[in-house]
Amino acid sequence: MAIEIKELTSREDSYAQWYNDLVIKADLAENSAVRGCMVIKPYGYAIWEKMRDELDRMFKETGHVNAYFPLFIPKSFLSKEADHVEGFAKECAVVTHYRLKNDPDGNGVIVDPTAKLEEELIVRPTSETIIWNTYKNWIQSYRDLPILCNQWANVVRWEMRTRLFLRTAEFLWQEGHTAHATEQEAIEETEKMLNVYADFAENFMAIPVIKGLKTANERFAGAVETYCIEAMMQDGKALQAGTSHFLGQNFAKAFDVTFVNKENKQEYVWASSWGVSTRLIGALIMTHSDNNGLVLPPNLAPFQVVIVPIYKTDEQLAQISEKVSEIVAKLKSRGVSVKFDNNDAKKPGWKFAEYELKGVPVRLAMGARDLENGTVEIARRDTLTKETVSTENIDAHIAELLNDIQQNIFKKAADFRTSITRTVDTYEDFKIEIEKGGFILAHWDGTPETEDRIKEETKATVRCIPLDGDKTSGKCMVTGKPSAQRVVFARAY
Amino acid sequence: MAIEIKELTSREDSYAQWYNDLVIKADLAENSAVRGCMVIKPYGYAIWEKMRDELDRMFKETGHVNAYFPLFIPKSFLSKEADHVEGFAKECAVVTHYRLKNDPDGNGVIVDPTAKLEEELIVRPTSETIIWNTYKNWIQSYRDLPILCNQWANVVRWEMRTRLFLRTAEFLWQEGHTAHATEQEAIEETEKMLNVYADFAENFMAIPVIKGLKTANERFAGAVETYCIEAMMQDGKALQAGTSHFLGQNFAKAFDVTFVNKENKQEYVWASSWGVSTRLIGALIMTHSDNNGLVLPPNLAPFQVVIVPIYKTDEQLAQISEKVSEIVAKLKSRGVSVKFDNNDAKKPGWKFAEYELKGVPVRLAMGARDLENGTVEIARRDTLTKETVSTENIDAHIAELLNDIQQNIFKKAADFRTSITRTVDTYEDFKIEIEKGGFILAHWDGTPETEDRIKEETKATVRCIPLDGDKTSGKCMVTGKPSAQRVVFARAY
Repeated sequence: MAIEIKELTSREDSYAQWYNDLVIKADLAENSAVRGCMVIKPYGYAIWEKMRDELDRMFKETGHVNAYFPLFIPKSFLSKEADHVEGFAKECAVVTHYRLKNDPDGNGVIVDPTAKLEEELIVRPTSETIIWNTYKNWIQSYRDLPILCNQWANVVRWEMRTRLFLRTAEFLWQEGHTAHATEQEAIEETEKMLNVYADFAENFMAIPVIKGLKTANERFAGAVETYCIEAMMQDGKALQAGTSHFLGQNFAKAFDVTFVNKENKQEYVWASSWGVSTRLIGALIMTHSDNNGLVLPPNLAPFQVVIVPIYKTDEQLAQISEKVSEIVAKLKSRGVSVKFDNNDAKKPGWKFAEYELKGVPVRLAMGARDLENGTVEIARRDTLTKETVSTENIDAHIAELLNDIQQNIFKKAADFRTSITRTVDTYEDFKIEIEKGGFILAHWDGTPETEDRIKEETKATVRCIPLDGDKTSGKCMVTGKPSAQRVVFARAY
Repeated sequence: MAIEIKELTSREDSYAQWYNDLVIKADLAENSAVRGCMVIKPYGYAIWEKMRDELDRMFKETGHVNAYFPLFIPKSFLSKEADHVEGFAKECAVVTHYRLKNDPDGNGVIVDPTAKLEEELIVRPTSETIIWNTYKNWIQSYRDLPILCNQWANVVRWEMRTRLFLRTAEFLWQEGHTAHATEQEAIEETEKMLNVYADFAENFMAIPVIKGLKTANERFAGAVETYCIEAMMQDGKALQAGTSHFLGQNFAKAFDVTFVNKENKQEYVWASSWGVSTRLIGALIMTHSDNNGLVLPPNLAPFQVVIVPIYKTDEQLAQISEKVSEIVAKLKSRGVSVKFDNNDAKKPGWKFAEYELKGVPVRLAMGARDLENGTVEIARRDTLTKETVSTENIDAHIAELLNDIQQNIFKKAADFRTSITRTVDTYEDFKIEIEKGGFILAHWDGTPETEDRIKEETKATVRCIPLDGDKTSGKCMVTGKPSAQRVVFARAY
């Protein structure tokens, strides 16, 4: 077979096209026949499974349990929280009928007009309303609190312009929904989960993030306060990687969820909700990958090591396979996931390109000379460097290398972010700097009007009011009014 | 606090009510505000997670990978396979619009009539059509085969009469969809997955099952052959616990999916699909549980052991806790999951009843006298027996006990099934016997007409044509026509 070259558009030619090429050619996902809905292919889904499993473990370690709530939300529920319906009404998939029938004209099936629902059902865009309607029956007393539920689910938001993983009509996510007896406890929960997300982003995805608060404009529809983690992509655009909302008593009031507190008084319940989605896979791609393909952090790679045999005869393959099986056993006993690709129908060159494209962190190649010398060639995906090492202690070497790669790609991303983060004091400078991309730290007067003006004139938004770092006050770069601290601006996905 | 008694209706009074009470009171699930859709509560979901994890492991061990396909299916896709649309058209949730707007009359939100979809979307009742439309682009040559994908997803079938877990409008399931180069390979896959399901049912759920083929009447809409596993519930009714379908080339033809075979000829692809759902939780309940509550097989219990301290003073609790933490550590190192319930707000008697209701396989109780004697009281849920044993080697003892409980509840279910399975030769006897419930082995002439007549007159259906066991031919109990072998009749869920 000829080597089938899966060439990517280079990032320099078109970042957007490079992204799309990569998602398709690395077999992560593709568009489906249903507008805006994607098919997540096995390799892409395997990455999502790794992410899900780690997050699920972190949620359980922080005391949360999983549950499952209905896909459908009665239309009237959405209306109960004013901001919430305002935020979601324009992008709802609506179920109006529950039966098809044969077309009397013989053209397949049509919607049966007699099977119209009394009340339309919305395919959940998020589940606060159906969940708070449920919690109403679960909560009577402070003894029933807190409730710390998470749900892994699909949700639908009818987006007009979609991009694989980044913005799709249907996506997979988790949504945590917690209920508390006090405001303080609900805020602590909201912040705790923000920290879980930041920990996951930095230590598993190797993506440095800024933790902060959203402005009123960018707040979740129905939240009192939205916390977020913001990441910087290679093209200088920001990406919101996760949000955690303090909902106050808004949903408790909308669904009349009260409890008897320790002082024996009736009170509305306090709430948080928090979520991350398959969008994170887009962030993963746009943080680490290069013109050769994906670069995956070892902590989330579906397999961390691939071994490619290089042979001319069946006898050579047999000898290599024997040696490889020892290495595989040693790696597995250290918890390293490894694939031995002895597929005879593909040439080593094709395999090298393929695993580079798919971002496998470490590639081993073993040929006849390696067998003689007791060596193996190691290529690392992040730096594209190679070395030939002894097969003795290869497992320890690789374990260390994987750790090194994980650290290295995080550092690279963090250094890039540092290089592209600037402090700006005047609106003129801001307009020049924003064109170059990156995070811009500037003073803002805190009003939606000024934020709107900046967005209109520069396409930049306040990504967040950062929780950490410099808290020096100053003057708004646009209006000159007082500003409590610099906020983070960027153009964003 | 007073002991809140969660009493169940007894099975003898009303099996259906007992079932419903148990699902609610053991905190497994409840009905939601959306007709036919349930909320799976954390304890019920924890059981599903255990089931899912084991099945997922078995699927991966047999070479399958997970992927994710769209929730929505264009209406026209359903029509492409004639039997398929016939089977599902009457129970489809149909999305017709993609936006809401404010009611001009000020009554909340209404469906925006200008946001009508050109083609309606069906919420997937099963995914053969959208998946085979996708596979079309994945398959060109025999080298692209087999494709062995599984999907964990929610599906919707608009059922008019619903029951928690057993029959709900939305349910969770997995659906495997495989594509093959030859008929033989597709049939082998179909049979392999039936065996995986039977293995899972018997060795994890502790439910004995009969493997067999469905009759044409009961076949999956679009299948050439449907294989199933059939289980017997305590009330004498059968329950279909899993199906695996050989789809022939039906969906390949409907979606024009061809490949170039090794002989360089264009050919339609061969297919299988197979699924199990949250319905299995209903089977689990109705196989093992009793008037005191759930009885869970140790292999699927969210926690296998609960430890309840019995104390009067804080000092006693501290001493017991210290001893218990040793036991917990030993159990965990053996992979036994354990909960120490030191909640001071509940009395031991309440806890005993609660964990009995929730089916925890083994309960340990430790009091002051146990501390003195170096003993602990062990209660097993399946037999409700107790023994006091030394805490030395308690971990080995409990590991053995869990294994024993797993075997014992399987044996109990198998013995019950044997006791309620009869061979019948005349239709008169059949009519009498079917009233008593259970499986009836009888001869049938293989025609849908006779099967329909039996169903109409007795409410019994052919559950399956068993693959194993007696293959002696005979004469149909109704028509006297030849019968190749006895088939399994029952009334069913």
